[in-house]
Amino acid sequence: MKDIKISIIGFGDVGQGVVQVLSQKQQTLEKLGVNIKVVAIADSRSSLVNADGIDLKKAVKVKRNTGIVGRRGSTTAEIIKNTDHDLVVEVTPTDINTGEPGLTNILTAIESGKHVVTSNKGPFARNYAKLMKAAKDHGVVLRYEATVGGAMPIINLIEENLAGNTIERIDGILNGTCNYILTRMGEETLDYQHALLEAQELGIAEADPTYDVMGIDAACKLVILANTAYNNNTVFDDVSITGITKITPQALELADKNGYRVRLICEVSEQVLSVAPKLVPKKHPLAVGGTLNIATIHTDLSKMVTISGIGAGSIETASAILSDIIHIYRACLANTR
Amino acid sequence: MKDIKISIIGFGDVGQGVVQVLSQKQQTLEKLGVNIKVVAIADSRSSLVNADGIDLKKAVKVKRNTGIVGRRGSTTAEIIKNTDHDLVVEVTPTDINTGEPGLTNILTAIESGKHVVTSNKGPFARNYAKLMKAAKDHGVVLRYEATVGGAMPIINLIEENLAGNTIERIDGILNGTCNYILTRMGEETLDYQHALLEAQELGIAEADPTYDVMGIDAACKLVILANTAYNNNTVFDDVSITGITKITPQALELADKNGYRVRLICEVSEQVLSVAPKLVPKKHPLAVGGTLNIATIHTDLSKMVTISGIGAGSIETASAILSDIIHIYRACLANTR
Repeated sequence: MKDIKISIIGFGDVGQGVVQVLSQKQQTLEKLGVNIKVVAIADSRSSLVNADGIDLKKAVKVKRNTGIVGRRGSTTAEIIKNTDHDLVVEVTPTDINTGEPGLTNILTAIESGKHVVTSNKGPFARNYAKLMKAAKDHGVVLRYEATVGGAMPIINLIEENLAGNTIERIDGILNGTCNYILTRMGEETLDYQHALLEAQELGIAEADPTYDVMGIDAACKLVILANTAYNNNTVFDDVSITGITKITPQALELADKNGYRVRLICEVSEQVLSVAPKLVPKKHPLAVGGTLNIATIHTDLSKMVTISGIGAGSIETASAILSDIIHIYRACLANTR
Repeated sequence: MKDIKISIIGFGDVGQGVVQVLSQKQQTLEKLGVNIKVVAIADSRSSLVNADGIDLKKAVKVKRNTGIVGRRGSTTAEIIKNTDHDLVVEVTPTDINTGEPGLTNILTAIESGKHVVTSNKGPFARNYAKLMKAAKDHGVVLRYEATVGGAMPIINLIEENLAGNTIERIDGILNGTCNYILTRMGEETLDYQHALLEAQELGIAEADPTYDVMGIDAACKLVILANTAYNNNTVFDDVSITGITKITPQALELADKNGYRVRLICEVSEQVLSVAPKLVPKKHPLAVGGTLNIATIHTDLSKMVTISGIGAGSIETASAILSDIIHIYRACLANTR
C-alpha cells in the first residue's frame, strides 16, 4: 500500500466534491494499492492541518456551518510549503485576468517539490508555458484534466491516448451554459433573455453570466487545448471571441429551415483560435443539445475522434481530478518498482 | 534519447501500417525523446532480424513482391526469445476459436521479459486473465488498445482517463461493417444481401463476412471491454449474440416511422453481456451512420462519457499501437528518472 498525502487548496463546490469522492472511493483506491490521506485543507480565509489525516466529513460540516474550514492565521503559501505532503489539489476559483490565486498556489507547490492536480483554468489560460517549465525543472508532475470539459477527458486524450498523432484541428462545444441557451432558443423560439433567465432559474447559468455568454470561459478552455495540442505558449489574448448575446430566435429559425443548428463552436488549429456562433448541420456530431460538452479531434493517424461528456458539476470535476491523482500514483509506483 | 528495440510479429496490413507510421513519425518520436528501432519482423512463413535496425521501406517492398519478409527457418518463438529487444508488437490475425498464434506469441514475449503491444483480439477474448497475470508476474507491460475500435481509444479511456470511476454500463457500436450495412438498408430500403454486396464491393465487408455479420467480432470486443471494466475473467462463451442477417428492410422502415434506427448494439455490465440488433431513438448519440465505432460509458462519477472514432484501417490501428508504445516508453523514462 502506498500512502499519498495531499492538500486541498480551495474548499468551494469542487474542493468539497473532491473530499466527497475521496471518502466514497476509499475501497476502490485501496484495491488500486493506494491510500490517500488529506493532511491539509485551505479556503480563502482559513486552514486546517492534521498530519494523521483530516476527518473529511467533519471538515465539510464545519465549512457549511461556519463558512470557513479551520483557523485563521496561516497563509495558503505557508500551508503548501510547510505541511509535509506529496501532492496539492488546487481548486480555487478561476480568475481569467490575473490567474490568481491559482497561479501563485501552483508555483509555490511546484517549487516546494509537490505534484499538482488542478481544475483552475486561470493560470493555464495566462501562463501555460511558465507552469509546465516550472514542473519540469522541479521534477514534479502537473496535471490539469479538470480545467477543460469537467468529466469529458479531453486533455489526457490528446496527450496520451492520441500520443504520436499530429493534431490538425479541434472543433468543439466547451461551454454547457451557452449550448443550453442556444438549444432552448431553437426548440421553443425563445429570445436570448428568456432562455438565459430559464438557465439561471435551473442553476445552469450563473447570476452574472458574462464569462459564459460572452465566450470567455470557452476561450480559456480553448487556450488550454491549444497549448496541450501544440505546446506553443498560446495565451488568452490570442483568441478571437464572439459570444451568443446577439443571436436572435429569427436567426435560429432560418438556420433550422435550412437544416442547421447554431452552436458556439471553439476551433483550434495552429492557424486558427476562435470562439464564435456557427452553423452546424443537424446531423453533424457537434449538433448536440443541452449542457453537454463535445469535441472532435482531427489528426493525421486516427483521422477523427469525438468525445463528449458532462462539462460541469462538482462530482464530475472531482472525477477528472481523481483520475489525475491516480495517474501520478501509478507513475510513482512505476518509479519504485 | 532512449533507444527502444522492438519486433513486429505479423506482417499483414496492420504490421505494415505500424512500419509506415514508425517511418513517418521518426521526428515526432525524437521530440518525445525516444528512438524506436525495429530489430525483427516475422510473418507466418519467414523472418528478418537486424540488430542495427531493419530498413523498413525495403522490408515492405520485399514482402509485397515476394509474399514473405525474410528467410525461412526460424520459428516465431525463436525470434521473440532470442533477439535482443524490449518490446513485441503482436499483430498476427485474430483466431477467435483458439486465440493462436497470438496467445503463444504474447506469452512467449512476456515470459522472456518483453513488453507487449497488440491488436490481436483472439487471445484477449479467450484468456484475458491468464495474459494479465503473466504480464504482472514477469514485471512487463501488456497493452491492447488496438484490439477494440481501431483508432477509438476506449480501453485506455476506461483504464486511465476514467480511473477511480465505477463502470455501471457500456453501450456501443463496435462493428463498422454491420453499422454500414444497417445504415444503407435504412437509407435506401435495400435488403440485407444487397447492402452486404455493396459493402463487399467497397472493401468494408470481407469476402467471408461471417465474423462481422453474425456479431462474433463485436462479441470479442465486448469481452475485452468487460474484462477491462470489471477484471472479471469474462470469456467469449459468456456473451449472448444475435447477428444482423435476419433483419429486413420492412423492420427498418417500421422503426423509422416510429422515430428509431436499428443498430447492432453491444451492452456490457456486470449482469449483461449482449450483442444484438436494437431500436435506438434517432436523436440518441448511438444512432450514428456509416462505419464509425461509438460507445457510451456510464459511470458513477463522470455519469456518461461518449467516444467515437474510426473502428478499422491499418493506419488507424497503428495509431493505437503507437500510443501504447509511447505510454510504455514514458513509464520507462519515469523509472529511470
